[in-house]
Amino acid sequence: MRYSRLLAPTLKEDPADAEVASHRLMVRAGMIRQVARGIYDFLPLGIRAVRKVADIVRDELDRAGCQEVLLPMVSPAELWQESGRWEQYGKELLRIRDRADREFCLGPTHEEVMTDLVRRDVRSYRDLPLNLYQIQTKFRDEIRPRFGLMRGREFVMKDGYSYHADVEDCRREYENMHGAYSRIFRRCGLDFRAVEADTGNIGGNLSHEFQVLADSGEDSIVSCTTCDYAANVEKAELRPAPGEVFDDAPTTTVDTPEARTIDEVSAFLGVPAERFVKTLLFMADGRGVAALVRGDDQLSEPKLKAALGASELRLAEADEIETLTGAPQGFAGPIGLEIEVLADHRLAGCRGMVTGANAADKHITGVSAERDFADVKMADLRRARADDGCPRCDDGVFSVFRGIEVGHIFYLGTKYTEALGVKYLAADGDEKVMEMGTYGIGVTRTVAAAIEQNHDDKGIIWPMAIAPYEVVIVAVKWNDEESREASEGLYADLVAAGVEVVLDDRDDRAGVKFNDADLIGFPLRVTIGPRGLKTGKVELKARAASDAEEIDLEGAAAVIADRVREARDAGR
Amino acid sequence: MRYSRLLAPTLKEDPADAEVASHRLMVRAGMIRQVARGIYDFLPLGIRAVRKVADIVRDELDRAGCQEVLLPMVSPAELWQESGRWEQYGKELLRIRDRADREFCLGPTHEEVMTDLVRRDVRSYRDLPLNLYQIQTKFRDEIRPRFGLMRGREFVMKDGYSYHADVEDCRREYENMHGAYSRIFRRCGLDFRAVEADTGNIGGNLSHEFQVLADSGEDSIVSCTTCDYAANVEKAELRPAPGEVFDDAPTTTVDTPEARTIDEVSAFLGVPAERFVKTLLFMADGRGVAALVRGDDQLSEPKLKAALGASELRLAEADEIETLTGAPQGFAGPIGLEIEVLADHRLAGCRGMVTGANAADKHITGVSAERDFADVKMADLRRARADDGCPRCDDGVFSVFRGIEVGHIFYLGTKYTEALGVKYLAADGDEKVMEMGTYGIGVTRTVAAAIEQNHDDKGIIWPMAIAPYEVVIVAVKWNDEESREASEGLYADLVAAGVEVVLDDRDDRAGVKFNDADLIGFPLRVTIGPRGLKTGKVELKARAASDAEEIDLEGAAAVIADRVREARDAGR
Repeated sequence: MRYSRLLAPTLKEDPADAEVASHRLMVRAGMIRQVARGIYDFLPLGIRAVRKVADIVRDELDRAGCQEVLLPMVSPAELWQESGRWEQYGKELLRIRDRADREFCLGPTHEEVMTDLVRRDVRSYRDLPLNLYQIQTKFRDEIRPRFGLMRGREFVMKDGYSYHADVEDCRREYENMHGAYSRIFRRCGLDFRAVEADTGNIGGNLSHEFQVLADSGEDSIVSCTTCDYAANVEKAELRPAPGEVFDDAPTTTVDTPEARTIDEVSAFLGVPAERFVKTLLFMADGRGVAALVRGDDQLSEPKLKAALGASELRLAEADEIETLTGAPQGFAGPIGLEIEVLADHRLAGCRGMVTGANAADKHITGVSAERDFADVKMADLRRARADDGCPRCDDGVFSVFRGIEVGHIFYLGTKYTEALGVKYLAADGDEKVMEMGTYGIGVTRTVAAAIEQNHDDKGIIWPMAIAPYEVVIVAVKWNDEESREASEGLYADLVAAGVEVVLDDRDDRAGVKFNDADLIGFPLRVTIGPRGLKTGKVELKARAASDAEEIDLEGAAAVIADRVREARDAGR
Repeated sequence: MRYSRLLAPTLKEDPADAEVASHRLMVRAGMIRQVARGIYDFLPLGIRAVRKVADIVRDELDRAGCQEVLLPMVSPAELWQESGRWEQYGKELLRIRDRADREFCLGPTHEEVMTDLVRRDVRSYRDLPLNLYQIQTKFRDEIRPRFGLMRGREFVMKDGYSYHADVEDCRREYENMHGAYSRIFRRCGLDFRAVEADTGNIGGNLSHEFQVLADSGEDSIVSCTTCDYAANVEKAELRPAPGEVFDDAPTTTVDTPEARTIDEVSAFLGVPAERFVKTLLFMADGRGVAALVRGDDQLSEPKLKAALGASELRLAEADEIETLTGAPQGFAGPIGLEIEVLADHRLAGCRGMVTGANAADKHITGVSAERDFADVKMADLRRARADDGCPRCDDGVFSVFRGIEVGHIFYLGTKYTEALGVKYLAADGDEKVMEMGTYGIGVTRTVAAAIEQNHDDKGIIWPMAIAPYEVVIVAVKWNDEESREASEGLYADLVAAGVEVVLDDRDDRAGVKFNDADLIGFPLRVTIGPRGLKTGKVELKARAASDAEEIDLEGAAAVIADRVREARDAGR
């Protein structure tokens, strides 16, 4: 492609509304333009990156035995009513009425439509297993679309669904998809972790999020330094660690006027945060419960919710706290509380702790778990932190990362197949309900995540495999005939070698061309100038590297093509 | 792909609602399933055919210098209001409101959104010309969706838009697209015509429809037997042919009781239809006009509308006819009519004709154009017919075909660029409005049209280039070990040779397999049976051929791969 013909309207200034790097850089590099909130045009460079990710996804899924289909974006309400999600789904589900006043929605996901297809056309165990996927534009009417493609309203997804005769086969496919997803993100050139995710009531490790590591990620994840274990901080299991014994003093009620928070009381009493029992009050399905964690730990609400088996959980309001504890907010403690109390494992056996006295301006010191709140239920309630021990191996500890969720695999069981009555005839002649799994990849989100992970202050640094173009040729002086001829020659040779190359044939200053090349993030840049040509040399620079090297113009195309191929296939 | 793993639920019975072959066969071959009226799932065989057409489209457009983009399917109302189409478009435009109550539509076409993108990012003559396209799922809320993919509500389109500094460049690109479209449909293996279409007020031959020839087509087209000229019958120009002189008798008013139609009067008077002057009364923009064609010709309303320069045209109602002619319907004639009258060229100079007398139950014989209705305007008003003379060459005559419109190219001028204020800075420093063209291909419709053109009573006969799979291997006895081994070996060799092949590994009767193979329409079928294997032979049969041939199993993969490649590239 000749740069003069390419629609790549680069901008010098950051767009005012862009809060994250991918949004900022995709707009500046002329890859996307906003049409409405959370709705974008993909310009040529943008759609090329999207298609590269989609092609890798398709290739790996086809290899893994999946079959591509395409379901309608406009889905009939009836199917969503059958699964119960027409009512459950919030306003993210954009509901529409056609000219005959029938209800439809713009499908943000397709469990119902896919399951309906399978229900109608798959009847025998001989037709199972079946793994069907599509790559499609979805719409989710986010209340606060932001971060460009990271949380847009219209986006491209790969969504896949598998159907099985039994749980074992569904688990086998789950592992198959785990492997395929790992290969996909590796081939995209991304540093990622497959993170154990919340599995709700199903149990087992049958949900994983694929997280691209990036400082700007919305999710905090921990990853073992030794083994493969990785999980969301809210959900990570923790190696059991017994509570510490600080001292064996008896309980004493002390005045702590105006000191409510851990920090305030800690400062007031001169006792470190780890000697506190933090007492948090919640309303779980309408009843009051208390949750205890050490003063320096953070409670994980998903863990508490799971430990309680609750379907609704929220922090109690000030007036509710007063009713439950008999004291204003800030002075709650487990001693004498008449409601259900759960404590984090780390508090088991601890002694010499400080906690609220359930009375205004008072705390209790010298608290012992075994002596003073022995009948509480112990559970894994705290958020994981850096250096916490890994639950899966003996000596690994956690590192903490920020992550961007780009994929999710989920063992669904019979949730949808039961609701929609999807049965098959087993070999023994019985009718059975199919087991089902669901697997998603945010295709446009993966492009954005790649940029979040790979950029600097000059622009994008594309991994080769998903770069819109692989190489740019910059002639320092386009109006120098020799430079132009050398550039055109190399361009033709690279095109012939199957390299995706842009020839910057603009009659502009070299500085402008270099800036655009860095901003757009071509993985390789070839610079051709009169000085180098005197000795038959051109300059080759990787976008990710700080230094350039000189190579012979003679044979340069072969050298560059090899380098491109190697980097393109690095993740295979 | 192994047939046992392929989701291809073939059906023995025709679906009750299918009126055309493509609908019937795509459902029976397990390619599509209806989800709601005019809304379909594409199953694996269906989406493969769609993707093949899309890939050919993309390849040819990229070669022709176009750039792919992707615009949102959900378009903001504001842009459609700016162009005036928010009001003009009927209920086919599905209008929606998001959660913030803002108005959007599901874009059935994207002139506004694309032009808005260009308006914001293209400012200089240096950035022109620009030809941008996308391949996207569209929605058009048809009042009566029917014929499966031929007139569905949700469908895949390629829509493209080009922007130019001046008319000449826009015409150059128009020719460029004409060539690209011709290559696309040729590569798809289709028999088609590029048909001159209605150009409204713009003039010149700047709109072409690409019509796939098929008996079930909704459009009637004529095509010259000698030159390239083809056109819709309603719009085809005609080689001027002077009116005939039948006799020179004087005008006589005759009684024709109860005889109103040409057939009735012709039978009553014993005069052939070609000696009649048929007088049709219309309301054009609110005023009454009469149009004359020969009794055996059919009037073309688009031609009459163009000749009148009218924006609204309809046949007059019975009471309007009575007011305009003073006689009941069936007795109108040009003589004595006090309204504007247009006559078809073929009536110029005719003599000895019969026409209505503008009085009940009376006609006039012996009518001469020059003598009796000399002051009417002559124009090209009749529909083309088989054997009419071609207007572009001296000796060609028309053949008539039925066609399915699969593509349309259109020179738009400044209709949208003016409305949306899309200006560029010319080399001379002036601001000018861009010229624009628009180019569409119905991708899913092309798949359906291919089937309409290529099928028999057993099923689909795919052109190689767009077949979901190219070859099927059928082992007559799958449980015969030698047959199975030979089949597996050939399958592996064909896969290795890059052939898209299905191995029918089902433990079913050969008849079932042959029927499915014919229904699905694999271009080549290899049959492997114990008898042939005794002499090292397998049977190769083209779906389109009636006879099979025996080839050696040894080397069969190379022979078949060559045949596939040759057919696949035949249209290049």
